[in-house]
Amino acid sequence: MTYLPVTSARPEAVRVGLIGAGWMGAFHARSLSLRIPGADLVAIADPAIEAAQSLAAELGVARVTPDPADLFADPEIDAVVIAGPARFHAQLSIDAARAGKHVFCEKPGAVNLDELGRVEDAVAAAGVHWQIGFNRRYAADFLAARRDVASGAVGTPQLLRSLTRDPGSGSIPHAARVPRGTIFLETLIHDFDALNWYNSAAEPVSVHVTADALVEPGFKGAGFLDTAVVTVRYSNGAIAVAEAHFSALYGYDVRGEVFGSAGMVQAGRATATAAVRYGATGLSAETPRLNIELFADAYTAELADFAEHVRARRDGAAAPDHGVPLTPGLLDARRALAVALACIESAQTGLPAAVAGSSAGAEARA
Amino acid sequence: MTYLPVTSARPEAVRVGLIGAGWMGAFHARSLSLRIPGADLVAIADPAIEAAQSLAAELGVARVTPDPADLFADPEIDAVVIAGPARFHAQLSIDAARAGKHVFCEKPGAVNLDELGRVEDAVAAAGVHWQIGFNRRYAADFLAARRDVASGAVGTPQLLRSLTRDPGSGSIPHAARVPRGTIFLETLIHDFDALNWYNSAAEPVSVHVTADALVEPGFKGAGFLDTAVVTVRYSNGAIAVAEAHFSALYGYDVRGEVFGSAGMVQAGRATATAAVRYGATGLSAETPRLNIELFADAYTAELADFAEHVRARRDGAAAPDHGVPLTPGLLDARRALAVALACIESAQTGLPAAVAGSSAGAEARA
Amino acid sequence: MTYLPVTSARPEAVRVGLIGAGWMGAFHARSLSLRIPGADLVAIADPAIEAAQSLAAELGVARVTPDPADLFADPEIDAVVIAGPARFHAQLSIDAARAGKHVFCEKPGAVNLDELGRVEDAVAAAGVHWQIGFNRRYAADFLAARRDVASGAVGTPQLLRSLTRDPGSGSIPHAARVPRGTIFLETLIHDFDALNWYNSAAEPVSVHVTADALVEPGFKGAGFLDTAVVTVRYSNGAIAVAEAHFSALYGYDVRGEVFGSAGMVQAGRATATAAVRYGATGLSAETPRLNIELFADAYTAELADFAEHVRARRDGAAAPDHGVPLTPGLLDARRALAVALACIESAQTGLPAAVAGSSAGAEARA
Amino acid sequence: MTYLPVTSARPEAVRVGLIGAGWMGAFHARSLSLRIPGADLVAIADPAIEAAQSLAAELGVARVTPDPADLFADPEIDAVVIAGPARFHAQLSIDAARAGKHVFCEKPGAVNLDELGRVEDAVAAAGVHWQIGFNRRYAADFLAARRDVASGAVGTPQLLRSLTRDPGSGSIPHAARVPRGTIFLETLIHDFDALNWYNSAAEPVSVHVTADALVEPGFKGAGFLDTAVVTVRYSNGAIAVAEAHFSALYGYDVRGEVFGSAGMVQAGRATATAAVRYGATGLSAETPRLNIELFADAYTAELADFAEHVRARRDGAAAPDHGVPLTPGLLDARRALAVALACIESAQTGLPAAVAGSSAGAEARA
Repeated sequence: MTYLPVTSARPEAVRVGLIGAGWMGAFHARSLSLRIPGADLVAIADPAIEAAQSLAAELGVARVTPDPADLFADPEIDAVVIAGPARFHAQLSIDAARAGKHVFCEKPGAVNLDELGRVEDAVAAAGVHWQIGFNRRYAADFLAARRDVASGAVGTPQLLRSLTRDPGSGSIPHAARVPRGTIFLETLIHDFDALNWYNSAAEPVSVHVTADALVEPGFKGAGFLDTAVVTVRYSNGAIAVAEAHFSALYGYDVRGEVFGSAGMVQAGRATATAAVRYGATGLSAETPRLNIELFADAYTAELADFAEHVRARRDGAAAPDHGVPLTPGLLDARRALAVALACIESAQTGLPAAVAGSSAGAEARA
Repeated sequence: MTYLPVTSARPEAVRVGLIGAGWMGAFHARSLSLRIPGADLVAIADPAIEAAQSLAAELGVARVTPDPADLFADPEIDAVVIAGPARFHAQLSIDAARAGKHVFCEKPGAVNLDELGRVEDAVAAAGVHWQIGFNRRYAADFLAARRDVASGAVGTPQLLRSLTRDPGSGSIPHAARVPRGTIFLETLIHDFDALNWYNSAAEPVSVHVTADALVEPGFKGAGFLDTAVVTVRYSNGAIAVAEAHFSALYGYDVRGEVFGSAGMVQAGRATATAAVRYGATGLSAETPRLNIELFADAYTAELADFAEHVRARRDGAAAPDHGVPLTPGLLDARRALAVALACIESAQTGLPAAVAGSSAGAEARA
Repeated sequence: MTYLPVTSARPEAVRVGLIGAGWMGAFHARSLSLRIPGADLVAIADPAIEAAQSLAAELGVARVTPDPADLFADPEIDAVVIAGPARFHAQLSIDAARAGKHVFCEKPGAVNLDELGRVEDAVAAAGVHWQIGFNRRYAADFLAARRDVASGAVGTPQLLRSLTRDPGSGSIPHAARVPRGTIFLETLIHDFDALNWYNSAAEPVSVHVTADALVEPGFKGAGFLDTAVVTVRYSNGAIAVAEAHFSALYGYDVRGEVFGSAGMVQAGRATATAAVRYGATGLSAETPRLNIELFADAYTAELADFAEHVRARRDGAAAPDHGVPLTPGLLDARRALAVALACIESAQTGLPAAVAGSSAGAEARA
Repeated sequence: MTYLPVTSARPEAVRVGLIGAGWMGAFHARSLSLRIPGADLVAIADPAIEAAQSLAAELGVARVTPDPADLFADPEIDAVVIAGPARFHAQLSIDAARAGKHVFCEKPGAVNLDELGRVEDAVAAAGVHWQIGFNRRYAADFLAARRDVASGAVGTPQLLRSLTRDPGSGSIPHAARVPRGTIFLETLIHDFDALNWYNSAAEPVSVHVTADALVEPGFKGAGFLDTAVVTVRYSNGAIAVAEAHFSALYGYDVRGEVFGSAGMVQAGRATATAAVRYGATGLSAETPRLNIELFADAYTAELADFAEHVRARRDGAAAPDHGVPLTPGLLDARRALAVALACIESAQTGLPAAVAGSSAGAEARA
């Protein structure tokens, strides 16, 4: 061989441990292993050890454990991705931060504001990067819309809307086991973040909720909700509507719209591909069916951004600059959580509810 | 640490050498290194050695050489990607095949049918996998359209169209250096393949070309063409139109349409993202600007498919099955090349030209 | 001449008098004279007599008067179109009915439910046809959507939305003179009717309003509102959102959406024509600018339907049958008005407000 | 009554006689009677007298005759609409012109250029207005596209396309009786005019045709063609493609596209209304089914324009000015016919055919 010498300028990948090998965790694991060159998935923790082992085997990950603490204790791990149940998010973030690990946490950041306050304290004390899985920000169309807000093309936002309809078949098999508040804390929290992000010059002030169990009315008595419309009032007067539904027969439907004093921008893709069919009954096209299809690139991009942030911290380099506010952190987590918690209150009382002052609290901590 | 043991089920990546570190070669290199987990880019060959070294450094590729022969001689290389000038494609394919390397070759497979015949012989003798870079087949919308043909939703194809408009600024800086026939051999060959693929139950029989140098009329005397419309007649009566232009101010415009006895399907994406803006002058949206943007996923998918094929050969496993004809091989290269060569003749005479019998030749060799 | 004899089977047009020669009245006048063969505009009444005379001259209408009573007294007039200010609608309807004239009344039918009750009584006593100008029902896309609800393609409606954004330039010149409640009584009333019509198997039960003067904040103190979001709760559990804004820079934006247990349907046209332009900055298209452009056909269709109804009454023929509920009458006027009035209350209190029981009242009268 | 006096400023309608009460003639009759206030349909001539009588009765037209000569002799008739078989168009135009009647003639203007020359002579001698039924020019999207060419938004046209797919069920019942050349003389002539109109700064120079009987192959031997692709070369280098098919299962599909040095514009509407449905199998929408649905407004507009031209001649007023070339006259009829006739030649020889010099001939006559 007569190859010439090459000095690699390719940065070393960040080493990531995954906590939670469920559906979303497994998807993140595949992204980290297969689609994000800046990250290596090196360990998987899940008490459901078979799931962790199977995923690790599939991806060639050498380290598996039932206990997340093993990841925190591992000096070869730079960062963790937290994809377990929502009720564990805050404590896992705190433990990870204390161990000096950077954290990517699925939404919500915590299930109440006190918990999130403790995460904020731990992260601040440890000086680690903490990022939340508001993946919608990384979808090309939603980001293009945000850039239009930033450029002034929309003017001052006055009317906003964001909706999430999860795919379904007209029934919700495990409705009985869905925690109360899920539609606000785990589904609409994406919409609340999207709205807050689009209207980031203002604060959410109050909400009014109309919600019901229209898909599974039998579970409404137990507090289950599968359909919700939320009006959010912002400090700059803007009025936003967020809407969620748990069972759209035509697939996964996510849209956003910002109307302002200078124009409007819409995001959201109605079709799965650009192919359009014409037949005896008219025109037809495929619709997006799953979040991991519609947002495949967005899920990759949020983890790639995370890896870049971690690398910047590790290597003392500048954090990535996206030109517009993008990487969602603790303040974003707090704002969206505060809206979701106000919604739970409004859903119970039927009356408008105030959003706990997110900026005040956050500024006090900053 | 108390990690549990894991036996990796992840297959070993195929080791690929790249020949040609120009614009397209560099893009393929980044795909192989960063976006295709089943492939490792392990070596780069280019006589323009600085380009090769710079690319290798960027991607952490250890082996660089000015001479492709080094790649053929390297026992650690499973396969090569040929992305050099078209006039070298055939000989590089032949040399690679003789060295037992699997080949991914950018289009065209050769610049005439004799050359391609020698590639066919060498590939057949060596028993290697040979694949051509007809990336459009791997774009989600074009593939969905092909599936509609396969499913019968379109019926028997009767009218087809395919167009390629390259982005430009209204002039073509290096028009003088563009080889004659480029618009047919390097641009429209994508459209010819798309049409052949959509109408794969039939053979292209004859063509008629109308072409001109409308962007750079000063170079027409030297045989340069930047605008072309081609009518292709198929053995099942179907009539296809292929169209190319070298300078669309609004970006990269690629579309396909198949109309048949039962319906129609269209492919081609008019907008860069799903974001739509509304302002005082109306509605607006971004258009796709570059092939590597519009077809980013398709470029990745064709190389991932190649890696899967190579791995299947290496590991004695079944080749990937896509449900419809997908992976383009030598017969596809031959058919598209035969159409392109007939176009060169028709462009010179102004008369229809017969397409050299592709199936006959291919069957004789098979 | 050797023409053969013909016995005309063409029905005699109904003779219509117009009350109100303002902007909308003049548009209706032109529709009646020029676009609706089943109607003849024969008289115009408006205290602003110059406007009436000018319009009459333009259209060749022979009878002009400042006093609507002249129309009621005219035995050659079959029907009147009421297009004056909202506060006169009810009394004009009552007087017309008592004179035996059929009535087409612009929205709202009245400014409170008592007034509307008196209209109901007068119309019932006289046995005339009374129709309200909910023109959106007659737009091809909105009607197609309603047919999809009727066919079961949508299933049971669960989430609905309707929006109206009037075109504007970013300020509202006569904000000081706009009557309080206009955004609900004159703008959103179209959306309330659209929602009621889509979900006609149920009744609106309660509303919650968030509204503001975001375009003209200086007039908010005087009770002026230019931006509003309304949540409407229906007796079948469905949740609807209606939204209005008085100044969209990109033109006139009207949309509807019905999501149900079996699917979704959307109505609303984003572009003025099907022409799409591509240039250096991307794709662009014209947006609809005026209600009388976007809904030109719908305005014609509602009056043509009115003329058919009047003719059916006059000639003792069967009323037109549209296959789905279409022609909006007093019950529709009452339902939409009840929602608008509840909105005025909710806007003042900031709390949800009950919708006055429309079906109960209407049934009692029926 | 106390009505005030009004002096009508409404112009007297032009009095039109219809020749031909077939499908298209009946549609024009209804437009003239019901949708065009500037025209009165006063007489109908058709040798199939029952059709004429039935249509006259429906519309309240008093004069019916089997003989068009009665219309020419009638001093109360200002103008005629010729909607009989193509082979009679020229002689009817000549007779009408000689009688001093203005003429609206369905396409084609004649079946050969000599015939058309005689029409040109008669029209010039009589000084009447002669207009041809190229209705596509009056469709809002096609006209918007033409305005974009006029404004320079497209630059110099380089690539054009126009297609017509007639609705069908997969067979053509009366294929045996369709005159030879129909696809060029009666269908594609619309496309030829659209292309000529878009590229009106240049002349069509030559054509090349690929055509077949793919729907009804059994009639190909008798000269029947149901599928055709035409390439048209223009004097400014522009290359156009026109395409026609007689049996699209999904309805009536008409599109246009102009690509030039500064951009592109597309016309053609894919859906019947703006309503979009989403269900378990994806997104769907209705497609246009009939020319008289898709082009309803365009058919009305061309006759309204005709009426305005006739009225301008009658009243000595200025002809309507549309800002861009719009009203199609004899030169347009000649250009499109010359292209169609060249196509018939090319279809027979399989070779390119020259287009008879349209401007030369027309200028000689002018």
